[in-house]
Amino acid sequence: MSEDVVGLAAVTVLGVLEQAYFSLQVIYARRKYSVSPPATTGPPEFERIFRAQANCSEYFPIFITVLWTSGLFFSQGASSVCGLLYLYARFRYFRGYSQSAQGRLAPLYFSAQVLWVLIGFSCVGVLLTFCRVYLAIELLGQLTAALRLT
Amino acid sequence: MSEDVVGLAAVTVLGVLEQAYFSLQVIYARRKYSVSPPATTGPPEFERIFRAQANCSEYFPIFITVLWTSGLFFSQGASSVCGLLYLYARFRYFRGYSQSAQGRLAPLYFSAQVLWVLIGFSCVGVLLTFCRVYLAIELLGQLTAALRLT
Amino acid sequence: MSEDVVGLAAVTVLGVLEQAYFSLQVIYARRKYSVSPPATTGPPEFERIFRAQANCSEYFPIFITVLWTSGLFFSQGASSVCGLLYLYARFRYFRGYSQSAQGRLAPLYFSAQVLWVLIGFSCVGVLLTFCRVYLAIELLGQLTAALRLT
Repeated sequence: MSEDVVGLAAVTVLGVLEQAYFSLQVIYARRKYSVSPPATTGPPEFERIFRAQANCSEYFPIFITVLWTSGLFFSQGASSVCGLLYLYARFRYFRGYSQSAQGRLAPLYFSAQVLWVLIGFSCVGVLLTFCRVYLAIELLGQLTAALRLT
Repeated sequence: MSEDVVGLAAVTVLGVLEQAYFSLQVIYARRKYSVSPPATTGPPEFERIFRAQANCSEYFPIFITVLWTSGLFFSQGASSVCGLLYLYARFRYFRGYSQSAQGRLAPLYFSAQVLWVLIGFSCVGVLLTFCRVYLAIELLGQLTAALRLT
Repeated sequence: MSEDVVGLAAVTVLGVLEQAYFSLQVIYARRKYSVSPPATTGPPEFERIFRAQANCSEYFPIFITVLWTSGLFFSQGASSVCGLLYLYARFRYFRGYSQSAQGRLAPLYFSAQVLWVLIGFSCVGVLLTFCRVYLAIELLGQLTAALRLT
């Protein structure tokens, strides 16, 4: 089984490394702006880096979940490409947010769009499999047949 | 393999859509109560919505983890039903918390109970498989045999 | 398939139980120090427990992700042992942080080291599989052959 999902696993490992990078940036920012744990408030520069990392962490499980659902039920290739785009968008989001609250917006919107594409892939893939397994309906086959008749 | 877990995958996709809905509510609340990022404090109405989403996000990975552990090692059907109940409880929790801190309690307790059921299923399923694989003991078979003898 | 991953699943269930324990500690601390939701600030004792749980929750999805990637692509045994070490380090981190901000450091560093080992296992395992599947290169075999020739 592990050979069929190695593309997804590679994107996953990249994602983990990216999160590790973000976490290290927060540690450096805590030192630079003298904000000792458990405090999470301080100069705006620190708070932006802290929130950027918190936001990326919050979305990480959702990203991993849709990456794999989409990869297993729709297409490993398409999901892996979207996954790489998402990780790139998150990198630009983190860099942008570190500089200004405004700078986070464009990459944030882009990352959200990529996430919606992965959610769409997951919905289509799971729906098609669900219909085939539980309703014994070949949605895709019927659609193709219907299109051929017209 | 994907056909054996399509029920779990369907609940997973629903869970992701629910999280997306919660995230959108926070974005609307930020606009309505004029709380610009990176700030996370503001009027109590905003803070309740923000904390409701943060709490759901925090529990999302745990929910997905026990949903799949329970589904793979105990029963896909029982886990999927519990998963749907959990997502419904979280929806009521979010709505209740948005209105008052008190309103979050009943659905929160219910969601915690459903989560404990999923954790219980996971423990039983993993323990039975563990004993069979590593100790070559058929716990369930021995229990049935012991009950038959009495 | 479930029999090949039961060790990872057992560590996963232990990890979920640990997170449940941390969550209960925050609930007790909220009562003890009279910090009602949605507030997340209060006496330092409360804030340390709150941040300890938040930090563990934040790392939980990353831990589960690398535990399974490492287990599926590198070695289930080695990953499970690292997983148990990580959970023990997190337990000591939570206890240490509850007592003082200083007390969190040693177990935090240890947990980070274990996480890096799991990330390293994942990278090696995924890279070897990736080369075999997509580049038809047996990295490990070639390395052994090269070593034999020298």
